[in-house]
Amino acid sequence: MLLDMQTVVLISGGLDSTVALHDAATRGTVVLGLSFDYASKHNARELPCAAWQCAQLGIPHQIVRLDFINELFCSDLLQSGGEIPDGHYEDLSMRRTVVPFRNGIMLAVAAGVAESQGAQALVIAAHGGDHAIYPDCRETFLGPMAEAIRAGTYANIEVQRPFVNRTKADLVRRGKELRVDFSQTWSCYKGGNRHCGTCGTCVERREAFQLAGVPDPTEY
Amino acid sequence: MLLDMQTVVLISGGLDSTVALHDAATRGTVVLGLSFDYASKHNARELPCAAWQCAQLGIPHQIVRLDFINELFCSDLLQSGGEIPDGHYEDLSMRRTVVPFRNGIMLAVAAGVAESQGAQALVIAAHGGDHAIYPDCRETFLGPMAEAIRAGTYANIEVQRPFVNRTKADLVRRGKELRVDFSQTWSCYKGGNRHCGTCGTCVERREAFQLAGVPDPTEY
Repeated sequence: MLLDMQTVVLISGGLDSTVALHDAATRGTVVLGLSFDYASKHNARELPCAAWQCAQLGIPHQIVRLDFINELFCSDLLQSGGEIPDGHYEDLSMRRTVVPFRNGIMLAVAAGVAESQGAQALVIAAHGGDHAIYPDCRETFLGPMAEAIRAGTYANIEVQRPFVNRTKADLVRRGKELRVDFSQTWSCYKGGNRHCGTCGTCVERREAFQLAGVPDPTEY
Repeated sequence: MLLDMQTVVLISGGLDSTVALHDAATRGTVVLGLSFDYASKHNARELPCAAWQCAQLGIPHQIVRLDFINELFCSDLLQSGGEIPDGHYEDLSMRRTVVPFRNGIMLAVAAGVAESQGAQALVIAAHGGDHAIYPDCRETFLGPMAEAIRAGTYANIEVQRPFVNRTKADLVRRGKELRVDFSQTWSCYKGGNRHCGTCGTCVERREAFQLAGVPDPTEY
């Protein structure tokens, strides 16, 4: 990696991408934290966390609105969709919360933004725990997508996925090393006043802190 | 190809994608013509042509707004950019009209729409003449992008690029066979009342009709 590589980090305001942002800031120059408002039920809770984390690091933050997702796509994650199911992430019911090709869309938009801003790299926080139900978190997707972005941009932009073979517990451990304030991250898909503790992403968040042996500051 | 494959066709309203729409309609069921409004100088001229061509074939038509492109991206093709240069497509000055990773973004959004609508394939009209200045029209981009979309969707959506090794003149010939009304297509990047005849895309359009030996109905 070039020492002076200019990087754009995809940050939702969740635990994973927040750790990825802090990690990227130790390795190069993060020129932008890029978030997406696609009218999910929890965007209103996530996006302020994304802005807070970028501000803490002195990194510019941009929110891109993707209104067409809520209008045209089918997913219970969206305001236009049904109720968020309770249960474990690996349950088939969680499939209803998948937004079709969401990571592909976010990476493609980020590639265009990065090229426009003269950056040379993107960071996405996809990790091994995501793989079970999300086809667009797997390396079988990320590898070709990275190659498409490299070949499809003048700057040959590199898509970095530093945690793709790690677990969410590894991310919690890395975040602790970097002194990340986990209380300023949001996971719950229901987007209420506090984390529900019972939806798939809350269950996964709790498990990750337990497995990492790191105190969980989240109010459930 | 499955005989009953449900296809989404990317249609700008230009000559190439209009021929691709009519061609796809002879090969399978086109469930949607998908256009993008990204505030280019010529969107207002192109999009009515796209709607007209879909209506003629009885195909539903959807326009997706990508407002973030005009706000965040740098390109003279956009309303936020500088003047469209005159000259030949291969001139370096035409590079200023490239919208960074535009085809990547359009294909990614189309993949999500197709997955939401239960379609199994996408068609994009990229052709050999596009390759000189557009990195996101080349097979080195389209091949990996197609693989990313296949791997990143539950339906394993196929990206068809039937003209990637053909010329624009080949597209004109194919359009003539299919009785496409070329007068209801729009190419000029300047987006005025009629085709200017001098910008790169007008020059290319005129040449294609001449090379194909097909009368050009365009008023320049």
